[in-house]
Amino acid sequence: MAKTKNYVIGVDLGGTSIKVGVVTKDGKLVDKGFVDTLAHKGPKTVVSQIIKGINLVIGDYKKEIAGIGIGAPGVVSMEKGTVENPPNLPGWKNVALAKLVQDEFKIKTLVENDANAAAVGELIFGAGKDLDDFIMVTLGTGVGGGLIINRKLYRGQKGAAGEIGHMTIDYNGPKCNCGSYGCLETYIGNNHLVSAVSKKLESNRDSKIYELLDNNLNNLTPKVISDAAQMNDQFAKSVIIEAGKHMGYGMASLVNIFDISNIIIGGGVAGFGKLLFDSIKETIKERALKPISSRVKIYPAKLKNEAGIKGASSLVYYKA
Amino acid sequence: MAKTKNYVIGVDLGGTSIKVGVVTKDGKLVDKGFVDTLAHKGPKTVVSQIIKGINLVIGDYKKEIAGIGIGAPGVVSMEKGTVENPPNLPGWKNVALAKLVQDEFKIKTLVENDANAAAVGELIFGAGKDLDDFIMVTLGTGVGGGLIINRKLYRGQKGAAGEIGHMTIDYNGPKCNCGSYGCLETYIGNNHLVSAVSKKLESNRDSKIYELLDNNLNNLTPKVISDAAQMNDQFAKSVIIEAGKHMGYGMASLVNIFDISNIIIGGGVAGFGKLLFDSIKETIKERALKPISSRVKIYPAKLKNEAGIKGASSLVYYKA
Repeated sequence: MAKTKNYVIGVDLGGTSIKVGVVTKDGKLVDKGFVDTLAHKGPKTVVSQIIKGINLVIGDYKKEIAGIGIGAPGVVSMEKGTVENPPNLPGWKNVALAKLVQDEFKIKTLVENDANAAAVGELIFGAGKDLDDFIMVTLGTGVGGGLIINRKLYRGQKGAAGEIGHMTIDYNGPKCNCGSYGCLETYIGNNHLVSAVSKKLESNRDSKIYELLDNNLNNLTPKVISDAAQMNDQFAKSVIIEAGKHMGYGMASLVNIFDISNIIIGGGVAGFGKLLFDSIKETIKERALKPISSRVKIYPAKLKNEAGIKGASSLVYYKA
Repeated sequence: MAKTKNYVIGVDLGGTSIKVGVVTKDGKLVDKGFVDTLAHKGPKTVVSQIIKGINLVIGDYKKEIAGIGIGAPGVVSMEKGTVENPPNLPGWKNVALAKLVQDEFKIKTLVENDANAAAVGELIFGAGKDLDDFIMVTLGTGVGGGLIINRKLYRGQKGAAGEIGHMTIDYNGPKCNCGSYGCLETYIGNNHLVSAVSKKLESNRDSKIYELLDNNLNNLTPKVISDAAQMNDQFAKSVIIEAGKHMGYGMASLVNIFDISNIIIGGGVAGFGKLLFDSIKETIKERALKPISSRVKIYPAKLKNEAGIKGASSLVYYKA
């Protein structure tokens, strides 16, 4: 019986949509679906939507599901299965999400912060499979982080550890949504990056980015910058190199503090590829303490498409 | 027999002198001595000097010594008892210091990096006695750190973790000895602080610091700044408040990354007292993520005089 439980379900709970998938033991996504979060209707509705989402995909696999993993925003207690005050999900205070879902399906359910779930996903299925220790950074709208120490997720006193995006790299830097200044996120978070590039484009009128955007700056995304760099656009390349420097400033501090030499980088901006990674590496070499900097290795995340679902699903296989 | 072993020996190995003391189970120093390090003569001589230093104080206590702890600069492997490439100790590559001392005295000997030993000292004897997790920061010529997680020293992959002084708080900041820029140490390390204050004094001619120095800026130390602040000198106070802000920028990043809300601060600059501590607290409140910042507590280190000896001695009682 237990031998037939070859699948896990992953739920990626976002502020606007809930993505759900069925994942194999090897981290392959075999089925997926999504529903609206309906966050404005409060936690009860959101939980119903999660259940609805799971029902979209569970059908044929029901007897073969070893567990359900949920990646949620906010501070999560994995032991208690509760989610506290998630940003973008109004009305939640402390919701026993794991229990509610588990009671519905009678299947073991685990919940973890989404950035932490991404780190566990790389540990179980991805670039961290053979690493004992690594720092996981996810570059998206926000810059998230997760820390794996001795193959365990480091959660801190209340499960809120790993907020790498809110490490200050210039205390006089741009104001961050969190209230602080010069957080790493204010340099390489998608929105900040795009708006900084928009401004600089005014004095780089010959950049291929204009062509790619049909001169409409509102269409600017990290992908467009990446495409322009592929076309050898010097301005786009300089943007990516600078993003790598900012990342490197932060990562150099982190490796000095943690003495962890493995860094896994995922999320959209990681699509900047080799140019970004080389710039990060070079900056760390220049900035981190010598005995550590020589050991530093940077890995692109392996879970790319639907990393949120896969990361969440991997929680079922994680041994706390 | 075991019951009578009420003392431990602590050795604080520095670049110019070696301080040795006999310490009780409660962390009280009952005897001390010091010898020159003679660092320029290489590791063999330094080891002889350590043994000479221990012989200065061990006399009456010999049969009552439960162990010897050594705090050394550089990267230390506590398991192997080796010290690698310590700064200020030329000619060392990899010295099995613990074994050499243990063989001499036939007493269990442990060696640890000095900043880590300071953290263990607070854990065993000091402000961290009742704390499960804390960040220890030692403000001296360098800015050192040690991380206690779940009452264990966090050492990282190679025992080099906790280099809090080399966290960048402004990537365009002053050049650091380590080769990077804007490290926390370049703001609040003694030498950097003193030289920054010296420069600013030129435009603060009415500061009481001039009187205290007999107009000789070469005599400037953190102590003098502290004394002037005690005399209500506005410039001196502003220096201390600014030092607290710089510390706060770094500490806010750290609490966000670690989700550890206890910070213990020791070393000379910690003598700036309440003015410094209040400034640090306020800055963390302004800058750290709300769920963490409300929990942050800052403690002055309890091991003050001869903290190096006491911290080293505490290694004997530390359960790894």
